[in-house]
Amino acid sequence: MDATMMHEPLGTATIFAHGEHIHAASRIGLFDGEQVTWRSYAETAERARRLAAALRAAGVGTNTRVATLSWNDFAHFEAYLAVPAMGGVLHTLNLRLHPDQLRYIMADAEDAFLIADGSLLAGLVPQINSLETLAQIIVTGDTEGLSGLAKPWAAYEAFIADHGPIADFPDVDETAAAATCYTSGTTGDPKGVVYSHRTIFLHSLASMAANAFALSDRDTILLLPPMFHANAWGLPYSGWLAGADFVLPGPHLQPQSIRQMIRATAPTFTATVPTILNDLLRADAADPVDMTSFRVIVAGGSAVSEGLIADVERRWAIPLIQGWGMTETSPLCVLSHPPADVAPEEARHLRAKSGRPVAGVRVRLVDDQGKPVAEDGKSVGRLQLRGAWIARGYHRGAGAGVLTDDGWLDTGDAGTIDARGYVQVTDRLKDLIKSGGEWIPSAELENHVASLPGVDLAAVIGVADPRWEERPLAIVTTPHGIPPDFARLRSALQGQVARFWIPEYWAHADTLPLTSVGKIDKQALRAAVATGKTAFERIDEFS
Amino acid sequence: MDATMMHEPLGTATIFAHGEHIHAASRIGLFDGEQVTWRSYAETAERARRLAAALRAAGVGTNTRVATLSWNDFAHFEAYLAVPAMGGVLHTLNLRLHPDQLRYIMADAEDAFLIADGSLLAGLVPQINSLETLAQIIVTGDTEGLSGLAKPWAAYEAFIADHGPIADFPDVDETAAAATCYTSGTTGDPKGVVYSHRTIFLHSLASMAANAFALSDRDTILLLPPMFHANAWGLPYSGWLAGADFVLPGPHLQPQSIRQMIRATAPTFTATVPTILNDLLRADAADPVDMTSFRVIVAGGSAVSEGLIADVERRWAIPLIQGWGMTETSPLCVLSHPPADVAPEEARHLRAKSGRPVAGVRVRLVDDQGKPVAEDGKSVGRLQLRGAWIARGYHRGAGAGVLTDDGWLDTGDAGTIDARGYVQVTDRLKDLIKSGGEWIPSAELENHVASLPGVDLAAVIGVADPRWEERPLAIVTTPHGIPPDFARLRSALQGQVARFWIPEYWAHADTLPLTSVGKIDKQALRAAVATGKTAFERIDEFS
Repeated sequence: MDATMMHEPLGTATIFAHGEHIHAASRIGLFDGEQVTWRSYAETAERARRLAAALRAAGVGTNTRVATLSWNDFAHFEAYLAVPAMGGVLHTLNLRLHPDQLRYIMADAEDAFLIADGSLLAGLVPQINSLETLAQIIVTGDTEGLSGLAKPWAAYEAFIADHGPIADFPDVDETAAAATCYTSGTTGDPKGVVYSHRTIFLHSLASMAANAFALSDRDTILLLPPMFHANAWGLPYSGWLAGADFVLPGPHLQPQSIRQMIRATAPTFTATVPTILNDLLRADAADPVDMTSFRVIVAGGSAVSEGLIADVERRWAIPLIQGWGMTETSPLCVLSHPPADVAPEEARHLRAKSGRPVAGVRVRLVDDQGKPVAEDGKSVGRLQLRGAWIARGYHRGAGAGVLTDDGWLDTGDAGTIDARGYVQVTDRLKDLIKSGGEWIPSAELENHVASLPGVDLAAVIGVADPRWEERPLAIVTTPHGIPPDFARLRSALQGQVARFWIPEYWAHADTLPLTSVGKIDKQALRAAVATGKTAFERIDEFS
Repeated sequence: MDATMMHEPLGTATIFAHGEHIHAASRIGLFDGEQVTWRSYAETAERARRLAAALRAAGVGTNTRVATLSWNDFAHFEAYLAVPAMGGVLHTLNLRLHPDQLRYIMADAEDAFLIADGSLLAGLVPQINSLETLAQIIVTGDTEGLSGLAKPWAAYEAFIADHGPIADFPDVDETAAAATCYTSGTTGDPKGVVYSHRTIFLHSLASMAANAFALSDRDTILLLPPMFHANAWGLPYSGWLAGADFVLPGPHLQPQSIRQMIRATAPTFTATVPTILNDLLRADAADPVDMTSFRVIVAGGSAVSEGLIADVERRWAIPLIQGWGMTETSPLCVLSHPPADVAPEEARHLRAKSGRPVAGVRVRLVDDQGKPVAEDGKSVGRLQLRGAWIARGYHRGAGAGVLTDDGWLDTGDAGTIDARGYVQVTDRLKDLIKSGGEWIPSAELENHVASLPGVDLAAVIGVADPRWEERPLAIVTTPHGIPPDFARLRSALQGQVARFWIPEYWAHADTLPLTSVGKIDKQALRAAVATGKTAFERIDEFS
C-alpha cells in the first residue's frame, strides 16, 4: 500500500506566497532613529518580486549566491523573500567581522552578488575589489565613500525600479540550498552552514507552534536579533508565514531607540540577548519603559540568569524564557518554557535552564566514548542533536567529525539533561577546565566571579598546572580600572562553588576581547596568556 | 553549493518519542460514563510499546495493515501511536458503516490485523470470517457474541501483557504509508486516502501553529471527533506532539455525558460538529454547562452558521471558529480565525466563513475549464487545493481525475474566495442546481428553508424541469410530522433569497436519510424521488 499524498516540495516560495496572499494587510515598520515607516506585506511582496526580476535580469539563476551586508531594514527583508524563492542562495554577512574575514567568507561561498548598506561597504572596498567571483553590487543608503569600488554597482531603488514584479518562482527541489550563514568561528576559519528550502520551511512551521514562539497574525515582532546572525532566529520567515507585524530597528539598538520603537509600535514579541535586556532594565530604572504590550521575551546567545528572569518578571510582569540554539540548528533547538503544572518559583528556575527540545528536535547526552550519560540533571556530558533542521556538516566539508558515526551533530557544548527533558548547557567543551581529573565548567564559574562585589566582567580559562594538569585562571575587569584584592575575591567565592573550582590564578585587565557576536573571545585570551601579554598572579596553592 | 543539513526523515516515531520523553507527565483520560480514569503519557507510551512488540511477534511488519474498529478509547490511542511507528499502516474503520461496506473496505485495504471493540465486532462476524487477508483480531471490552468468529483472536490486555516494551522503532522512509482512512463515499465505492509519515508529521506541526489550533502542553483536548473519521482532525498526533492532556469520551457523546466530562476535566479545546454544539446549547438552556475552561471551539463537518457562532459567544463567551477539511486534506485545510484588526461583528461574520488556508496549504478557484475565477468573495468556482499534506489520489488509483493536469486536488466543492483569502464553500459541485443556466447552491438554500417557522430539517435537490432544465425540490420534516403549508413557506422565503432560488417543488417526509457521518444523504433522496418513493407537489410555476 503506497501513500497517496502529493509530492509537494517544502519551500521558501510557499512561505513567500502565504504571507503575501493570506496576510496582505500585515505590516513591516522601519525605525529611522526618529519614527517608524510602515509598509504592508502586499507592498513588501511586490517590491521583493521586483527585486527578484531585477536580479534575474542581472544574471542570478539557480544556486547563485547573493550576499547581504545590512542592518535589519526593508531591503534586507526583501532579499530574504526574493533570493531563495527565485532559486538563489541568500548569504547574510556579519557586518561586525573583520574585513579580511568577510573577504574569506565571501570567497568561500563564491558570492556573485552583494546587496550592501553603502556606509558598511565603504570600509571594505579593497577586499570587495579583490573578490573574483563577485559580479555586481546593489547599494542601499549612502553611496559616498564608494569611489574606489572597481566592481559594477547600482543603487537599490534604481535597480528594482526598472523591473515589474516577477510573476512566477521556479520549481526548486526542497533539498536545494536556499541560504547560508557562517559560524562565528571562535576556533579556526568560519564555516558555512547551508540551509535548504525544506529546512527553512520546517523551521518556520516549528517556530509558529504554541509551545515554541507561538507566532500569529496578532503579533508584532520587534526584530532585535541581527538578520545576519543565524537568520535572526529565523523570524523573518516564521513571522512572515504567521502574518505578524514586524518592526525593524535598522542600526538603532541603543536603549533610548528601543524605548522609542516600543512606544511607537507596542510589540508583543522579541528575541534578544541578555545584554540588551540589562541595558533596558537600567534605562527603565531611570525612566520607566512601557513594556505592557509584550506577551513573552526570548533571550539567548549567552546564558540567561535566574536573576534577570526574576527582574524582568518583577518589573514588567513578562515571562522571559531562554533559547539555546546555534547557526547549525537554524537556530531553534530548545526553549525554556516551563510545563503547565509548576509553581511560579519553579517556573522561574526552569526558565533559567537552556530549555526543552521543540517538537522535531532531539537532544542526547553522551560521554567521550559516545556512551549514554544519565539524564538526571546532574551528570555532565556532550550535547548532541538530531532533527530535520539540524546541520550535518559545513560547506566544502569543513569541520569534519562534527557528525557522529550514528548521525548526530556534536555541538561542542557540555551540559546536563534532566528527567523532564530540560537541557542545561554548562560550557563549551573546549572551555571545560580539567583539574585533577575533574571538570570545572568555566562559563558557570565566570558567572560567579562576575557577581563578586567590585568585579565588572570576568573570564575564566584553564592554565597548565604542574600538579593538577589544569587550573582555572580568572581574568577580571573592574568599574574604575583599579586592580581588585584577589585574595578577598577568593574568600568571597567560598561556599558559593565547589572548593576545587576556586581559582588561585588571577589577572586584572582593562577590557576583555569580544568576538564579532559579542561573546568573550577565549581564543584571544588564551593567546594573550600564552605570549605573556596578559600577566597573572598565583595567589595561593590548591591542594 | 549544496545544503549541509541532515537528511532526517519526518515520521510518526519522532512524534511518539517527543510526547513520550518531553511530555511524560501529560495525561490521557478515559470517560466510562461515570468517571474519568487517567494515564500518563509515559504509561501510555509504555503500553503502546508493548502493543508494538506483541504485534511484531504476531507478524506485523513493514506496510502490514492493522485496522481498528473502536470508539475513542485507550487501546485506540495506543494503536495510533504503535502501528505507524513500527512500520505498519493504521486503518481506522468507521463503525457507522454498513457491515458489507466495512467488509469491502477491509478487503480493499487488505487488512491483516484488526483491533476491535467486542461489542462492535459482534454484528460483523460473517463479514469478518469471509475476509481472506485478515489473520488475527485483538478484542477490547466485551467478548461475548464472538462465538461464531472463525478467525484467531486474543483479548487486548492479554495480548500486550505477554510482551515487554519494544525498544527501537525501525527506520522508515518518510514517504511510506503510515495510515489510511476511507472517504465516506456519498457517491460510488469508498476510496482509501493513504497518509505517509511525512504528511502526518507536517500536519501535526501545522496544527500546533498559533494561527491554527495553537495546541500546547497547557491544553486539555476533549476529543469529541471520532478517531475513525479523518484521524479525529489529526488531534491524536498533533496533541501528543504538543503534550496536551486528552479526554477520550468512548461512546459517550450525549449532552449529559459531555457535561460530565467538561465538569470533571475542564477542557480548553475541542473540535466537533454543529449538531453536538446545538445539543449542548439546548442542554445548557435547561441546566447551565460550565464552559469557562475553553479557549476556543472548532466546528466542521457541516456549515457553521453565524447564528450558532453568536449563540456560543453570547452564552459562553467562547470564540467558535469553523474548519473546512476532508479526509483528503489530513484534514486541516482552512480555518476561520478572523484577522487581528476587525470589529467583533465582522469577526463573527468571518468565523462563519469556511476559513483561510493554514500555512502550508494553498486554495484556488477555477471554472470548469480550469481558468481562474475572480477572488472577489462573490464569484463561484471549483475549489482546488495544493499542499504537502493534501492527497493526490486514492488507493489502487480509485477516483482518477481528482488531480488536475497541473497538480491540484479538485475537491468537488463549489465556493468563493475573497480578497483576504477567506474561502466560503457554497455547495458540493454535484449538488448545485442548474436553473436556466444559473447555479443555485442547494446547501445554502437548505439553510434558509430549515430556518422557516414550522420546519425541522430540510433537503434541497434538483429535479428535471421541462423549461429550466433543473429546478429545486425542497423536502422538509416537521416537528410533529404534520405536513406544512408549502405556499406559506414559499412566501416566507421571499426577500431572503434570490427569486429564482425559491422552490416550486415541495415534499414532506417523516425523516431524512443520513450518511454514516451524519450528513443528509442526497444520493438516497435522489433515488427515492426517481423511483417515486418520495412524492412531491408542484405548488406554483417559476417564470
